[in-house]
Parts: sequence; C-alpha cells; structure tokens
Amino acid sequence: MAENRPVRFGIIGCADIARKVSRAISLIPNATISAVGSRRLEKAVKFAVDNNIPTSAKLYGSYDDVLDDPDVDAVYVPLPTSLHLRWAVLAAEKKKHVLLEKPVALHVTELDRILEVCEANRVQFMDGTMWLHNPRTRIMADILSDAERLGEIQSIHSTSSFTPPPEFFEKNIRVKPDLDALGALGDAGWYCIGAILWAVSYGLPNAVTALPPVEFNEDGVIMTCGASLFWEDNKTATFYCSFLAHESMDIAVHGSRGAIHVTDFIIPFAEDAATFTFSGRGGFGGEDGMHLGWETTPEDVRVELRIPQEALMVQEFATLVKGVWGGAAPERKWAEVSRKTQLLLDAVDKSIKLGYRPVEM
Amino acid sequence: MAENRPVRFGIIGCADIARKVSRAISLIPNATISAVGSRRLEKAVKFAVDNNIPTSAKLYGSYDDVLDDPDVDAVYVPLPTSLHLRWAVLAAEKKKHVLLEKPVALHVTELDRILEVCEANRVQFMDGTMWLHNPRTRIMADILSDAERLGEIQSIHSTSSFTPPPEFFEKNIRVKPDLDALGALGDAGWYCIGAILWAVSYGLPNAVTALPPVEFNEDGVIMTCGASLFWEDNKTATFYCSFLAHESMDIAVHGSRGAIHVTDFIIPFAEDAATFTFSGRGGFGGEDGMHLGWETTPEDVRVELRIPQEALMVQEFATLVKGVWGGAAPERKWAEVSRKTQLLLDAVDKSIKLGYRPVEM
Repeated sequence: MAENRPVRFGIIGCADIARKVSRAISLIPNATISAVGSRRLEKAVKFAVDNNIPTSAKLYGSYDDVLDDPDVDAVYVPLPTSLHLRWAVLAAEKKKHVLLEKPVALHVTELDRILEVCEANRVQFMDGTMWLHNPRTRIMADILSDAERLGEIQSIHSTSSFTPPPEFFEKNIRVKPDLDALGALGDAGWYCIGAILWAVSYGLPNAVTALPPVEFNEDGVIMTCGASLFWEDNKTATFYCSFLAHESMDIAVHGSRGAIHVTDFIIPFAEDAATFTFSGRGGFGGEDGMHLGWETTPEDVRVELRIPQEALMVQEFATLVKGVWGGAAPERKWAEVSRKTQLLLDAVDKSIKLGYRPVEM
Repeated sequence: MAENRPVRFGIIGCADIARKVSRAISLIPNATISAVGSRRLEKAVKFAVDNNIPTSAKLYGSYDDVLDDPDVDAVYVPLPTSLHLRWAVLAAEKKKHVLLEKPVALHVTELDRILEVCEANRVQFMDGTMWLHNPRTRIMADILSDAERLGEIQSIHSTSSFTPPPEFFEKNIRVKPDLDALGALGDAGWYCIGAILWAVSYGLPNAVTALPPVEFNEDGVIMTCGASLFWEDNKTATFYCSFLAHESMDIAVHGSRGAIHVTDFIIPFAEDAATFTFSGRGGFGGEDGMHLGWETTPEDVRVELRIPQEALMVQEFATLVKGVWGGAAPERKWAEVSRKTQLLLDAVDKSIKLGYRPVEM
C-alpha cells in the first residue's frame, strides 16, 4: 500500500557532493533525511551541523547502522567508486532504494551485480547524474529528436574538464588507484559519455577508440583522455575529459538540419535558469547568395528553473520509490542509462589499455 | 621603385567565390580589377556585368590572355584544385603575384612546386582563407597565446560543415574526383585544420589519425571525415568536416586557465561585427563551494568591422605586393601557413587510405 509520507534518505559517507545532495533533499517535499553515517561518528555529527541536517536525523559512526535503520527507505551513496559494489549491494539486500553517485562502478560487471540485487529486492536504482534532470535537458532532447529542426545527428563533441587546486592531486579520492581507479575518465568522462549517449537516445556505438595521448599520474590514474565513437548509420562523436584543463562542459551536436551548443551542461552557470543555443535553417546569406553572413543567427533558448536540477533528481527518485510503494515495479530506465554509460566507459578504458585500438561494442 | 597605384588584379575563372573576392577588391583603394578571363568570353562578359566589374577591365576568353596582359600585376585563381598547379605556376612564371583559392593543391608536392616558382620569380603568394584576416582572429589569437588568460592549450575541437542543395552533389566541382579530389576534406576540412594550426601558432603535431567512418560519394570523393591530432606536449585536437551536416564552423579551445568558443569562425554571422566567447577564471560558485553555479560566466567579446574580412585579405595581399614593388622580399608567412595546412590535410588523407592508422609528421 502506498504510504503518504516523504521518502526517508540515509546518507552513507560525507563526501563534498553529499552536501549538495543533502540540500537537494531538503528542498523537496517528498524527501527527507533520516540518517547520516560516517566511519567516525564525529564526522557524521560535523556534517549534520554544517549542512543543516534535520535534528530528527539519526547520526551513526558506521554505514551498516544506516542500512539497518528501519526508518531509512533509501540510501544515497557518495562513497569512492571502489566501495560502490559492497555498499550498494548491501543496501539493496536490506531493501533500501539506491541513489548511487557516479561513476557507478569500476567495471560493468560490478554494476551488473548491483543491478541484479536491486532487481531481486525490488528496489529503485538511480545514479547521481544531475544534469539529466534539468528541464533544459528535456527541451534539448526534444530538438535532438526532431527530424525537422535538427534532422539526422551527424556529429557530437563533448568536453568535461576542470583544474582542481594542487592539493586535489595529492589527496583527492579521484586520483587514487584504490579509490577511483578510473580517474578523469570515471569522473569527468562519465559526463561526456553520458551526454553522447543521451544525444543519440542511448543507441550504442559500433566501436569506441581512445585517442592519444592519455596522461596518467604517477600511480597510473588517468588525468586526461579522449575518445572517438561511431555508429552503424555513420554518426560520429568525440570527447575530451581532463583534470588539467579549465572548467568546461560542452556539448555540440551537429545534425543535417540544425545544431545545438551548450557550454555548461553539467553545472549550469546559474541555478535558476539555463540556456543553450539552437542553430537551425541557417544557411549563408548576403546579397545574391554571396555568403556575406548568415541568413538567420543562432537562437539562445532560456529555460527557467524554480527547483535546482539536483533537487529535481531527488524528486524523480522519490517519486519512483513511492511508485514502488504503490505496487509498481522499479523503473528500469535509469539503470539502463547508468549501464550503457559504464559500458562505454569500460570500452574507452580497454582501448587505452590496448594502445588506442578500437573496441567493438 | 615603388609605384603609387593600386595593385591590378586579373581573375582567372568565374567560380562563385570569385564574385565575393571581386567585391572585396572593389572595396579596397589599393586594389583594382583590370582583367577577367574565362574559358569562354561570354562567361567573362556575363561575370563582369553581373558583378559590377569596372568597365576598364579587359575581358578574355582564355586564362592565358590574362597572364599575358602587362596591365595585370596579380592573379586571383579560383579554379578547381586540380588546375592550381598549372595555372599558379604559369602565373608566377609570368611575374604575376598569386592569390590562390583553397585548398591550394591536391598534395603538398604540387604546392611546393608552386611556391618554388613564386620564390624564383619574386612574386607574393597567399591563399584565399578569409577568416585569418578578420580582426576577431587576431584578438582571439592574443588570448590563445596569453599564459594568464588561456594558459597552456590542452584541447581543441573544430567543425566545418554545410548541407548544400541536391544539385551540388551532382554538379559541383567539390564532389568531382578530377576537379577537387579531396572533397569535404579539402573544402571544409581545410578550415578545421587551418584553425587548429592557427590556435597552436602553427606548431606541427606529432601525429594525425583519421577517425572512422569516412563517407565517400560513388566516385570515391570524401563527403565527411574527421581526425585526431596530438602534439609533443600532450595537446590534442579533433575535427569534423562534412557536406552532410548543417552549416557549422566551430572552434573551441580549452586551455589550463580559460577557453574560447566561436561558432562562426569562417563566415561571421554578420559582416560588420564578429563575436566570440571567452571563459576565464571560471570556477564553480555557490555558497560554501557547493558548486551551485559558476563564479563568473563567459564573456561575449564583440569586434566591430568597418571592412569585411575578405576585403582585409585583399588589402593585406595588395600591401605585400606593393612592398615587393618597393624592393622588399615577398612575405613568406602566408606560404608557410598554406603549406602546413596542406601537409596536415595530406596526412589525414593518407591516414584514411591506411585504414585510419596514425600518420607521423
């Protein structure tokens, strides 16, 4: 029977990203935080104080305590990737719905195990990719699938990069082989791969080829890389991801009839509105077709947001959980999105290991 | 001795692009059109009438007549690429300065022959790449070489594509193996390769690899292709060029400290002003570094133009010709730009023929 109350989240791990998701949960009426667990209780307490966690939330000095708490319906897992298999599986086995931070796994076989346990225990799975929940994303998707406006997609390029402060390269989990072994590919590349798959409505490419040169840190973790993909129908895509380049998050999709450009797809410049550029029916103008300019210039499309994208993500997840409470099967769409993203991520990693040889899908 | 009169241009061939360059010549005080030659006199006459060519200009039913005319100082060559070697060499041998449409040659060995003859005859050489003469290009270049603003270049992506009308694919010289055998690579790819080289101050990459799939027409001419390039210092670049995708002309350069985006680099949206976007010192903002947005949003830089870019190209060429009249040696910079562009174009073509294997430079 459907319960008419918010979905109660337990958070395991107090990573920086958990602050943003905690705030998101607090913004949504159908979600609340009922527990926070860290390996050390003091850390959970500090996190709760620093982030206005409701005083009703229970604070624990272990992750297991959160999973054992009957007042927790769903678990948000912002732990390092190498810990995802263990904790996501445990959470699902304890019938907790799973909101799992990205990259979801070190390899798709790990993710498959997680998804299998979620399925067996009838719990909802979703990864923490926020931008997919921005209303701008839906509006861009409508154009991308519009045969009149964009036409057939011919080429896609995406970037995801940022230049973290020097201490990042010393201490952050994302540069540690035992924590986030996929480095920039897993962290920043996840977005590029996800954006490319999103643009093509999640059709898998024929092949994925990493592009030289990949840069590694001294522990062999990827600091920067890129890849080229192509599909049966000759669509192509390239991407570049890096911890060594300026903050960037571009998607450019060129179709037979139009194009879309966005340069802040992961974190929009502002929370309350997001824009992108649509170039359609362009053609070159000027007197007598002399191509002195363009007939029509690109259109800036602005999408207002009343609720930030990460809160919309939590809302979507909570709605699906409540659907399960009401007797519906867990929504598999989000698991499929995560799985295809991970599959391509693995393919890029494999191509790198094969010396930039193509990996057929 | 320097002559105080305009440089007198002869035009050989009445291609569409010649209309734009004729207009450009007419806009510049130090240049004038003194002759137009076509294989058929009627065509030259029609071209002159349609394009307001000065009535003082001589109209010829052959290219040779233009080259033999003592009142012609410089020849503009908009002929199909397969004819460049013959006519550019003949022009230079007759001491005419050479403004040669792009792609300059079918292979760098042809260009080298052209440049050798230009050198031996002390005539100025320049190719017809207009955007390099736009003042916006200089302003962007200043940022690209600014260690504070852009930092070290990490990654570049460029596109050049357009969807011509159906008759293009039947009749245009750019899809004919005996006229412009390099197809979209020579025509649209020339711009991408040129933009990438320009962005890196013309340092040659270590290797160039074509990216699958390349599409050909039934005569084996390239309709769409792309490539990946990388440099000694780990800079990378990718490009995509096509006759099958919507009008596009993107350059995105991502540096360690900033980025530049431009989406109309070849033909600016308007003649009288050109813009680009500079993202610098971005970083993610939001309360407490929670990354709820960006600290600073990209800056739109607008550059006013009093003279269109193609007229600035003619002006630069004419100034160099007058320099030669004054005793200076021909400026070799533009030959070097053309040659490096052609070298990379050849490398992409070779990589395609090798089944997408890397071609070392």
